[in-house]
Amino acid sequence: MSAGDRPKSIDLSHHLSDVSKARLPSPLKGLAKYISTPGLIPLAGGLPHPSYFPFSAIHVDALVPNSFAPITLEEHQPSTFSWLWNMFGLKEKTIPFTVKKYPEHPGDINLAAALQYDSAQGSIQLREITKAFTERVYQPAYEDWEILLHTGNTDGWSRIVTTFANPGDWILAEEWTYPSALASAHPWGIKAAPVAIDGEGLCAVDLRRVLSEWNEVERGGKRPHVLYTIPVGQNPTGGTVSAQRKREVYEVCVEFDVIIVEDDPYYFIQMPQYVPKEARKIHASPFDTDAEKYLRSLVPSYLRFDWQGRVIRLDTFSKTVAPGVRLGWFTCNTIFAERLLRQGETSTQAPCGLGQALVAQLLITWKPDGYIRRLRGLGQQYTDRRDHFIDLLHAKFHIRTSVSEHDFWKGRTVYDAYPKTGGLGEKYGTFGQTKYFSFVAPSGGMFIWLKFYFNSHPEFGKKPAETLEMQLWEEFAKGGVLLAPGWYFSADEENIPDGKYEGHYRISFSMATYPDMERGIDIIARVMKLFLDGQ
Amino acid sequence: MSAGDRPKSIDLSHHLSDVSKARLPSPLKGLAKYISTPGLIPLAGGLPHPSYFPFSAIHVDALVPNSFAPITLEEHQPSTFSWLWNMFGLKEKTIPFTVKKYPEHPGDINLAAALQYDSAQGSIQLREITKAFTERVYQPAYEDWEILLHTGNTDGWSRIVTTFANPGDWILAEEWTYPSALASAHPWGIKAAPVAIDGEGLCAVDLRRVLSEWNEVERGGKRPHVLYTIPVGQNPTGGTVSAQRKREVYEVCVEFDVIIVEDDPYYFIQMPQYVPKEARKIHASPFDTDAEKYLRSLVPSYLRFDWQGRVIRLDTFSKTVAPGVRLGWFTCNTIFAERLLRQGETSTQAPCGLGQALVAQLLITWKPDGYIRRLRGLGQQYTDRRDHFIDLLHAKFHIRTSVSEHDFWKGRTVYDAYPKTGGLGEKYGTFGQTKYFSFVAPSGGMFIWLKFYFNSHPEFGKKPAETLEMQLWEEFAKGGVLLAPGWYFSADEENIPDGKYEGHYRISFSMATYPDMERGIDIIARVMKLFLDGQ
Repeated sequence: MSAGDRPKSIDLSHHLSDVSKARLPSPLKGLAKYISTPGLIPLAGGLPHPSYFPFSAIHVDALVPNSFAPITLEEHQPSTFSWLWNMFGLKEKTIPFTVKKYPEHPGDINLAAALQYDSAQGSIQLREITKAFTERVYQPAYEDWEILLHTGNTDGWSRIVTTFANPGDWILAEEWTYPSALASAHPWGIKAAPVAIDGEGLCAVDLRRVLSEWNEVERGGKRPHVLYTIPVGQNPTGGTVSAQRKREVYEVCVEFDVIIVEDDPYYFIQMPQYVPKEARKIHASPFDTDAEKYLRSLVPSYLRFDWQGRVIRLDTFSKTVAPGVRLGWFTCNTIFAERLLRQGETSTQAPCGLGQALVAQLLITWKPDGYIRRLRGLGQQYTDRRDHFIDLLHAKFHIRTSVSEHDFWKGRTVYDAYPKTGGLGEKYGTFGQTKYFSFVAPSGGMFIWLKFYFNSHPEFGKKPAETLEMQLWEEFAKGGVLLAPGWYFSADEENIPDGKYEGHYRISFSMATYPDMERGIDIIARVMKLFLDGQ
Repeated sequence: MSAGDRPKSIDLSHHLSDVSKARLPSPLKGLAKYISTPGLIPLAGGLPHPSYFPFSAIHVDALVPNSFAPITLEEHQPSTFSWLWNMFGLKEKTIPFTVKKYPEHPGDINLAAALQYDSAQGSIQLREITKAFTERVYQPAYEDWEILLHTGNTDGWSRIVTTFANPGDWILAEEWTYPSALASAHPWGIKAAPVAIDGEGLCAVDLRRVLSEWNEVERGGKRPHVLYTIPVGQNPTGGTVSAQRKREVYEVCVEFDVIIVEDDPYYFIQMPQYVPKEARKIHASPFDTDAEKYLRSLVPSYLRFDWQGRVIRLDTFSKTVAPGVRLGWFTCNTIFAERLLRQGETSTQAPCGLGQALVAQLLITWKPDGYIRRLRGLGQQYTDRRDHFIDLLHAKFHIRTSVSEHDFWKGRTVYDAYPKTGGLGEKYGTFGQTKYFSFVAPSGGMFIWLKFYFNSHPEFGKKPAETLEMQLWEEFAKGGVLLAPGWYFSADEENIPDGKYEGHYRISFSMATYPDMERGIDIIARVMKLFLDGQ
């Protein structure tokens, strides 16, 4: 779709908060014509002279874009291998690049500019790169969308909270959601109204129900007009919303005039269905390097359906480059972008210039298709990690498989885990009847969400499940493995979903070594047995 | 003074805003004992594996710490020369250092850690460096102060606004102040009550007057309890508050229970008195390299007098390293630091790891005394630039000198500038009687503050001076020189100090080349003549 075919965004400025409306316009407004005059002698700003900047040149050894295999190769675990690179003194395969204070060619990344004060929008080069990337990968459905850099999605969301919500407002979020997003809103008295998740992720039907049944008096606040959602590899539940479901959610948001904040750090960690180890095949086309085909295989962003300009998409380099670069970007309509920019000018200003310069030069060095090759490789790495982790669960527990009829995992393959008992029972295929936990294989991201059963615990029914959840969490920690406790992810602080009977833990497979994963699962099995059976 | 001699801070937690008090405690509270257990298998956090980070090693060519002369050498203009380094292809004198993903020695800066998620406090190494620096240079007068990194003083102040002021509150600020500080507060309906400046900077007597005469009903808000101040090289007026004055201000703040936000980007750009070119001597002891002696020659920070822990000091690397690193730190009591940290966790998180790693390794490479040597050199650079700029004003205008009796510049040498008329009048020492502008030589920072007189303008008295100020500003811009208009710096948006008769401009001498400074002053002279005399 070419730009000309797309509609213009509609005016959604009534969504801005009072604080955002009160934010001053740019002081440069109306003066811009003078300020951009070539040859104007600048005696206005307090800019240090670049000759004082202590970095003359920065030379980087960067990984090659094809450092990680884009396919599953049996017995090939590149993530472990690359970790071993260091352990055995093996060298990572790198390409060098340099960023200089006084570069030779006009188009080069200029370290002097990167080290200077810059527009809070971010550097021109990195904005151009991210804009072209957004156009190519996400294809927004309207014409006048804008890019604005930020210092990571936490900063992005935090700015959105005060730009779109007044103190005391409600927002919408998945029933299980990212706690830091809630913590950004909490101090302003902004609470999250949970929307149910089903087997396909955020439930459009429940979204409509929450909005249509909204009772201002009961809730003590107006009907929410901001939806916070993590559509791919949802944190913590690991689900990924399909294109069709996104269309449905978008339609509900149009009907009820809700803006959608698409927090999408795991977009390139979309995964095919989990297949048990013994049935897993080597990927069909290991040498397929078609970037476009790969991109079209991914679930589209909400931007793809956004013909009105009501989506604010948050992208981050945290998962695709590194969290430490503190760099990401908003994609949204120009009115929203201008208000978010003003807020950035009086808080973070531009993201760190060193981060911007090195990431920009990295992407230039890799070239657009090289970066996409890298993203494929990364996605495969995390898929391998997920598969390995679930393989280990299969190896350490008896797993029974069923298709869920429960709303939450409806239609998905659920794995129920029972303890291995050892001895004769083990040999003849009978095993413990105490179901320990259930899970579905995540379809993206970095996490597996496990539902734990406490009904055989001596104190079951006598205290709330979340208390048992924390007791068990503590036992896990004492045993030597750190998980994330489920209550922490509940959008509703008081009513934890299924909190009466079940506990939940989020387990990350993104970081641990394969041997540590195995040790961790052994600890979970041992501690769980002691916790439930006292033996 | 050793740590043991110092009192503990008093409890000032009643200064926290409602929003800050409502901010959640750390989710790790109480769990810390488990999380820090060595050998704990981490399956909780969504951290990418460092093998995926694309930067293997970063090699930097850094300026040597003694790149800039710490003394005035006649005919030696190092800032211009270093700028010319590039113009003529001369090389900057550099030392190399490297930051590696997998460093060889335990104490080395670890690029893998810098690229990972990190505590919003900032990296351990950079905190240790800044803490030692703060202890050595500022010597806080109480024991339990804390360091917290931020992404620059704009971020620092922006966090302070919502941590200490409720919507609708008033804060205190110098009558002329940094507009971005006001812009951070403005959206929350937080207004600045101006405190007068006199020849020694922020006026303690006027501070007491404002506080003691505060009328809640008239002002529509409680008596302010937060003072925002720029004590060195004040932006825009260029003044520096003496130790004695700081003591007086601190005492008033104790009496009225006001916390002091010391925004001090120009601390190391303190300057000796301006001496006209013909009387200027080469510095007495050009080879004096005693770091301690230099540090003790600087005006002490408010921290030096802070026996209660009511100062929040904002330090930034923007002027001492480069603005693009977006890096600075808070120094304050532990209760304030904890609340500011929580806020950082849900907004910027840690500053950019690349910035932190390269700045930390730079400071380690330079060593503490090397960094102080660098700061001396920088201070001298800006002093040279100030001197050169004022020399040029002397060369281009007739300057009459007097000691001010006006409150604002009381006791300081004021330079009144009259046009050069050329021809016979010039030859015989008579000149134009139209006073164009007045200024005092700044005692620090990057700016000269000029008061312009419009009384000979045909429209004088018919329209407010700020209108003439903006007309003239526009004429300057059309003529080819960009200044910062004075109204922009007024703490009181409606009543601009002296706004009835005079206009003001802030001129920066930090960035322009010496030839550009000269051209800029020529334009100012030409445009002013046309503006006032129509010729």
